[in-house]
Amino acid sequence: MSTLPTYADITDAAQRLKGVARRTALLENLLLNEKLGCRLLIKAEPLQLTGSFKIRGAYNFISRLGPEARKTGVVTFSSGNHAQGVAAAAQICKIPATVVMPEDAPTLKIENTRAYGAEVILYDRYKESREEIAKKLADDRGAPLISSYDDFYIIAGQGTVGLEIVQQASEVDARLDAVIIPCGGGGLSSGSSLAIAHDSPKTKVYIAEPQDFDDTKRSLETGTLQHNNHDNRSICDALLAPTPGDLTYAINQKLLAGGLLVSDAEVIAAMAAAFRYFKLVVEPGGAVALASVLSGKLDVTGKTIAAICSGGNVEPSQFKEALKTE
Amino acid sequence: MSTLPTYADITDAAQRLKGVARRTALLENLLLNEKLGCRLLIKAEPLQLTGSFKIRGAYNFISRLGPEARKTGVVTFSSGNHAQGVAAAAQICKIPATVVMPEDAPTLKIENTRAYGAEVILYDRYKESREEIAKKLADDRGAPLISSYDDFYIIAGQGTVGLEIVQQASEVDARLDAVIIPCGGGGLSSGSSLAIAHDSPKTKVYIAEPQDFDDTKRSLETGTLQHNNHDNRSICDALLAPTPGDLTYAINQKLLAGGLLVSDAEVIAAMAAAFRYFKLVVEPGGAVALASVLSGKLDVTGKTIAAICSGGNVEPSQFKEALKTE
Repeated sequence: MSTLPTYADITDAAQRLKGVARRTALLENLLLNEKLGCRLLIKAEPLQLTGSFKIRGAYNFISRLGPEARKTGVVTFSSGNHAQGVAAAAQICKIPATVVMPEDAPTLKIENTRAYGAEVILYDRYKESREEIAKKLADDRGAPLISSYDDFYIIAGQGTVGLEIVQQASEVDARLDAVIIPCGGGGLSSGSSLAIAHDSPKTKVYIAEPQDFDDTKRSLETGTLQHNNHDNRSICDALLAPTPGDLTYAINQKLLAGGLLVSDAEVIAAMAAAFRYFKLVVEPGGAVALASVLSGKLDVTGKTIAAICSGGNVEPSQFKEALKTE
Repeated sequence: MSTLPTYADITDAAQRLKGVARRTALLENLLLNEKLGCRLLIKAEPLQLTGSFKIRGAYNFISRLGPEARKTGVVTFSSGNHAQGVAAAAQICKIPATVVMPEDAPTLKIENTRAYGAEVILYDRYKESREEIAKKLADDRGAPLISSYDDFYIIAGQGTVGLEIVQQASEVDARLDAVIIPCGGGGLSSGSSLAIAHDSPKTKVYIAEPQDFDDTKRSLETGTLQHNNHDNRSICDALLAPTPGDLTYAINQKLLAGGLLVSDAEVIAAMAAAFRYFKLVVEPGGAVALASVLSGKLDVTGKTIAAICSGGNVEPSQFKEALKTE
């Protein structure tokens, strides 16, 4: 197995990201706190450049590449947020990017990835292997293939979210009992849990997953890498990775307190709550941690909890559906 | 005329607001910048406590009251954002608040004002005078009547938005050519223009108004206080003040570069753009400055512009309508 990143790699990524990624707000609503009987802090990554946390890891990776990358470019595969992060980071670094995306990815994500200057190659999520398509492209061009989560620099970059949460909680005199993190392949949760374990060791870190994409929860509980059933569906298009990464799992296994599962309906309700209480547009996959709090998957009474809202790249039509529940 | 606030009163308000009001984000989207041919910075006051900038002025006023206010309480009238600001500020200061609100104010605004512990008295916007109702209540109780805009401390408090914009623009190496500010009674624009004139004297400050509520623009152009026609309608419920305030106009007359007018349709399009590019929920009245940029009311080519999005307290049903244009 490759080397795992450490706390120092996250602070190093934070230095590199200065002036590129934003230190997004940690939001709080007094009325919602009263309703829930806890203090709930929301890390608002929809406000990040490209509308999700993914620019953090992507820039941390791409900005380290040597001059030859300007010729070979970079290749990646992604359902949309990592795609935009890589496209924007590559554009900033003046490196060509090619992104393999599922043809049923949200139009907004495909359009934005192209708008950031990347070449987009579409594939069928249920019939083709994005890994194989991307690997062939990378091999043909001699280009680095950037994993969307299972990579040293990607994990370290995403870990800056955890670093900021602990700093920002301290600024508002909050002592964090728990942090809940949306989990697909585990890049955000592994990086952030490394930062949180170092800076706030008494804080428990949980992941939240869509209920039929509970590969990380099951892997944590069984001690071996579990896969999701290929036929499962969820509205959380950002969290459909088939299995945890080797690196992300190795970290998460040591540091996580457990996994929380939410249904599509609970995700929809959380998107509506983010609209109402935080004036924040959150996409389905970005809302699973908030959903786990609002639907009572963790006893939060009297506690101080941070939930990461990891992205906001949602189609207007889907957002309108979420508002119907209001 | 009463004394006008100065720059020192705004920095004093900023000190007082520390730990209460948030320093909301100054957002930017690279794709939108490219599309508009300018650098556009959005001051995101929907992310403020109570969902709009109004807590700034309200807390700056209420936190200065003597102990007798705990008995008399405070009285105000407002279409909803100032109502929530006063209710929350009074709750923080442990002072009772009574708010006179139009019966057709958004349900969300009325509910939240009550949720912050205020007594709400509804009136008919088109038949009754909210000033008279509130003045009688205040006189009966010996309570301070808090103007929603035409007050020394309210103006100074709202001016902290302008103070932050100049600071935050400097942090991202932006030299502001212009700042555009939503305008109802003029509290936000007068306070912010005082701060901007002091800290960034070369920056032009414009107000944006709904096209049939152009009282400030006409007042600036004629040199005398103009009124809006009582029968006019706009979706911008937060910007329906009948005429500029005496204090706010006295400041705006000296400092503003002019007024920009937008239609309801342009406001709706701006709400949709805030959703798409900034992942921010903006209410109609909060979106007029952004609308003026997107609809080309100012030549922004090659310039750096800040637009204040002043609030995000919008009903789900109205927001869904805005997303239909996407």
